[in-house]
Amino acid sequence: MSKEGKKERGSDLPCLEEEMPELYKQLCDIRETLEKHYRDMQDMEFTIQDGKLYMLQTRNGKRTGAAALKIAVDMVNEGLIDKKTAVTRVEPQQLDALLHPTLDPKAKKAATVLTSALPASPGAAVGKVVFSADEAEKWAEEGEKVVLVRIETSPEDIHGMHVSQGILTARGGMTSHAAVVARGMGTPAVCGAGDVKIDYAAKQFKVGETVVKEGDVITLDGSTGEVILGAVATKEPELVGDFGLLMGWADEIRTLKVRTNADTPHDAEVARKFGAEGIGLCRTEHMFFDPNRIAHMREMIIASNEADRRAALAKLLPYQRDDFKGLFVAMDGLHVTIRLLDPPLHEFLPQKENEQREIAKELGVDVEVIKNRVAQLHEANPMLGHRGCRLGVTYPEIYEMQAQAIFEAAVEASKELGKQVEPEVMIPLVGTKKELDLMKAAVDKMAEEVMAKAGKKFNYTVGTMIELPRAALTADKIAETAEFFSFGTNDLTQTTLGMSRDDAGAFLPEYVRKGIYARDPFASIDEEGVGEMVRIAVEKGRKTRPNIKLGICGEHGGDPATIDFCHRVGLTYVSCSPYRVPIARLAAAQAAVKNA
Amino acid sequence: MSKEGKKERGSDLPCLEEEMPELYKQLCDIRETLEKHYRDMQDMEFTIQDGKLYMLQTRNGKRTGAAALKIAVDMVNEGLIDKKTAVTRVEPQQLDALLHPTLDPKAKKAATVLTSALPASPGAAVGKVVFSADEAEKWAEEGEKVVLVRIETSPEDIHGMHVSQGILTARGGMTSHAAVVARGMGTPAVCGAGDVKIDYAAKQFKVGETVVKEGDVITLDGSTGEVILGAVATKEPELVGDFGLLMGWADEIRTLKVRTNADTPHDAEVARKFGAEGIGLCRTEHMFFDPNRIAHMREMIIASNEADRRAALAKLLPYQRDDFKGLFVAMDGLHVTIRLLDPPLHEFLPQKENEQREIAKELGVDVEVIKNRVAQLHEANPMLGHRGCRLGVTYPEIYEMQAQAIFEAAVEASKELGKQVEPEVMIPLVGTKKELDLMKAAVDKMAEEVMAKAGKKFNYTVGTMIELPRAALTADKIAETAEFFSFGTNDLTQTTLGMSRDDAGAFLPEYVRKGIYARDPFASIDEEGVGEMVRIAVEKGRKTRPNIKLGICGEHGGDPATIDFCHRVGLTYVSCSPYRVPIARLAAAQAAVKNA
Repeated sequence: MSKEGKKERGSDLPCLEEEMPELYKQLCDIRETLEKHYRDMQDMEFTIQDGKLYMLQTRNGKRTGAAALKIAVDMVNEGLIDKKTAVTRVEPQQLDALLHPTLDPKAKKAATVLTSALPASPGAAVGKVVFSADEAEKWAEEGEKVVLVRIETSPEDIHGMHVSQGILTARGGMTSHAAVVARGMGTPAVCGAGDVKIDYAAKQFKVGETVVKEGDVITLDGSTGEVILGAVATKEPELVGDFGLLMGWADEIRTLKVRTNADTPHDAEVARKFGAEGIGLCRTEHMFFDPNRIAHMREMIIASNEADRRAALAKLLPYQRDDFKGLFVAMDGLHVTIRLLDPPLHEFLPQKENEQREIAKELGVDVEVIKNRVAQLHEANPMLGHRGCRLGVTYPEIYEMQAQAIFEAAVEASKELGKQVEPEVMIPLVGTKKELDLMKAAVDKMAEEVMAKAGKKFNYTVGTMIELPRAALTADKIAETAEFFSFGTNDLTQTTLGMSRDDAGAFLPEYVRKGIYARDPFASIDEEGVGEMVRIAVEKGRKTRPNIKLGICGEHGGDPATIDFCHRVGLTYVSCSPYRVPIARLAAAQAAVKNA
Repeated sequence: MSKEGKKERGSDLPCLEEEMPELYKQLCDIRETLEKHYRDMQDMEFTIQDGKLYMLQTRNGKRTGAAALKIAVDMVNEGLIDKKTAVTRVEPQQLDALLHPTLDPKAKKAATVLTSALPASPGAAVGKVVFSADEAEKWAEEGEKVVLVRIETSPEDIHGMHVSQGILTARGGMTSHAAVVARGMGTPAVCGAGDVKIDYAAKQFKVGETVVKEGDVITLDGSTGEVILGAVATKEPELVGDFGLLMGWADEIRTLKVRTNADTPHDAEVARKFGAEGIGLCRTEHMFFDPNRIAHMREMIIASNEADRRAALAKLLPYQRDDFKGLFVAMDGLHVTIRLLDPPLHEFLPQKENEQREIAKELGVDVEVIKNRVAQLHEANPMLGHRGCRLGVTYPEIYEMQAQAIFEAAVEASKELGKQVEPEVMIPLVGTKKELDLMKAAVDKMAEEVMAKAGKKFNYTVGTMIELPRAALTADKIAETAEFFSFGTNDLTQTTLGMSRDDAGAFLPEYVRKGIYARDPFASIDEEGVGEMVRIAVEKGRKTRPNIKLGICGEHGGDPATIDFCHRVGLTYVSCSPYRVPIARLAAAQAAVKNA
């Protein structure tokens, strides 16, 4: 440390090595003894009085992710610790900072910081300002790098968020749509920047007196929340070197597989780069919000009979097929789990009258048709409503179209492109074996048809989410039909605890404060309750089908404490957003070491 | 049967006894042989050809409740069957018709039927027409019998519904507010009478050309849905005689206790008359909708600090105390389970702007205050929201007031009136032991304070609803604190199945049609899923506290199939609405016989 210390201190300060070389040497010897003893970097307190060195305290030193990584690898190289110990020396969460581009510190010094807001999604982003998702898409297609600036974002903006380098919103917190989606995508984001006054009509925003127009370049630091005028040089993350070494050791040690949640080929590619071993959750509904598709989706929803629904679905089929083909290509040789449509249909219709009018015009129907359908689809508790496989039961043609798209994509990717394709069709919100039987029969029938038409066989499996308590309790029966389970612990937490994630803000902070829950049960699994439900389902599922594949998807899948639980309960894999894949790999290795 | 047949046939038809006395005698002998053999009334098919009697088929005869009851009692008196067999010979559901006043058939013949609509709640009612709950209450206080006529009803009308002989609504189906509440109260109701055009301003309604004004007498037949002009003579139900005998046998045989759900002394008295052995569920929130009280409740809800909330609650205290005192007096010597506040607070604030304005005026605040609070309390999934003990955790003063009211009422009823009082304080929506610990500590503290002040000890227990899957799975831990469990199978069904009762109409009929659920799981317990959850909780609860009292409340408690399950799983009691108490007593006896 002395050399580091010397380099960084101001030259006007006295130096222990120069002033008291004896004591300095003594201190260095003590440090070496202590660090060898504790096998970790030490944070020591000492004093020198009347020319004598007194050691006051020592403990393992805190460090940044980068430092922890370097220390752990160095100590293995020096033979002080083994690889198993090394993987326990880095906090998985600390890796996050290492996975994203960062701003060059020198370049940043010279930069003009416009404002600072919430560091909603880490990493640095540089691009030209655009004010709508459509513009973002248009500019990106022309090869421009853009930063999407919105008052707030909604599911209709997804296609624009996907192509943006970074996202800046004037409103919203760490759990706003923009923040959550950006973190999932690994796109840097700064949210809740109240100083940023956006004028969509004039295509500009102001911060104080500074005006930033469409096309002007800004830089975001999603790790600090800073918004900077102009371009600042960035440094790409280093995924090789020490990082690659430690990750390699983690992969040797862990027994839990790590997959990713990915809805686009881009996400799939990023995740694969980060070490994902398959897709554990592809949410097909995200594919319907694209402006080219949402009109067909709405046409399907307002259709008053099956024939009209089928006609609208036929228009969606080619899009879905292309989506899946892209995923199969990106995941060549790995499993891809595709969840059929899950959210209630009203999520695809707008609630505001002016938007309803626009859509009515677009679809060529009276606005009353839209309004009536919105009213008809309204639900008191949408979380517990007409969604998941309940849609598949009442409108079988929706799942049929999705199954057709999956299997035709599988044929194209394997037959035409020579890729190895392993689709896993996942039925959501199953509560009874009978529901899954009905859905699986329809999927199997479609697979046969596609195979017959293509003259080519392909492998596929059909499984289910376990996200309802009833599914967990009857997992033995459901496993007679299901070839795999994926625990949807978001919904399983909501139903087991009887707690709506959207509404829990009114009392959950007080619950954590009073120690009723040790942690936010939506961030880290409630092991006593939801975990017990998982345990029951694992046990019952394995009783019926000993080699059943068991995974977890949803945000818990990237949480180290939950991953430890998943290891102990004997799951096959965890699935998480692309940028959490390395975190999950490390956490899985730590779980293996800890529970050996 | 021949005599019955002779009496009722038209005298112009030929009579077998007269025309073919030999064959008639042969038929009577065969009937006797068959009925002795099957020990039940026979529904026989026969033919006579060329002077010869051929028996074609025989099976146990279908019959009305009254007939079934008479046959069963007669057969016991004739020594053909024993009491255990007798109680299995009457369908519990058939008793319903025997518990209500009926129209005198002769008087009805002469009556003018105005219209016919849904038979929403059985029984006959005669009274003067009133058009508001407040008028109903005023007239009833003056000793008038009234029929409440409304376009539809809402929780604000409860006090008027309580004092009415019958309820007539122009809108709403069998599960409308009026229908559900009326059945619970045992008040006859006809609902969804679209022909009835109500003019509140003119205080009259029209059916075609007939005008019925406030104060005019009408008669409702809630068993047929008929609305009749003028008074028709009614017959009171016969709760003694054969009915009393069969019920007595049922009580000897059953092991399951039967309690009632009751929120008012009147309900409690009715239920006790029907044989209720205690109150299993008193929903305290219903007490807050009375016009004298709702203003204080709203004052409490819009209060911005604890002191203001306490001030508003102090105004509610005397009302609650009186409510509970009335229940304790009516239930002298029996247990009374009182559930502390359960629904989310937004249920007490109106959603419509004009009503919000009225309330603002009444409470002397700006309408924006009301609007903001309504917006703040809005929930995406209120069923899974800020309700039950979550209110007790965030606003401890609410439960404190309710506990104070319960215990002060207990002191008054026992000390002043010499009644034997057994309050059971029930905490709703518990998911963790810690929540119950916090709530029980507050209740115990209040009990001590009231005892100290009154200089009198009283018995009480504190327990919890088991209505969340998490509570069922951790029932062993919760039972360390809970002295009793009451299964809230309404909510437990919603959470276990992930199915909102309010929204299930969109797919549940199709689910039953496709055999996914054999029956509506909200009408009859889903034994495989929700029942398993109950089984787990019973087993875990008893492991910790072998003699823990276990009950079920909610509408399942009056369903014979569910009662059979409750018997098998070993519950202590079922609780149901007053008019279902005899049904539950009989069903409990049948369960004991069937599972002996």
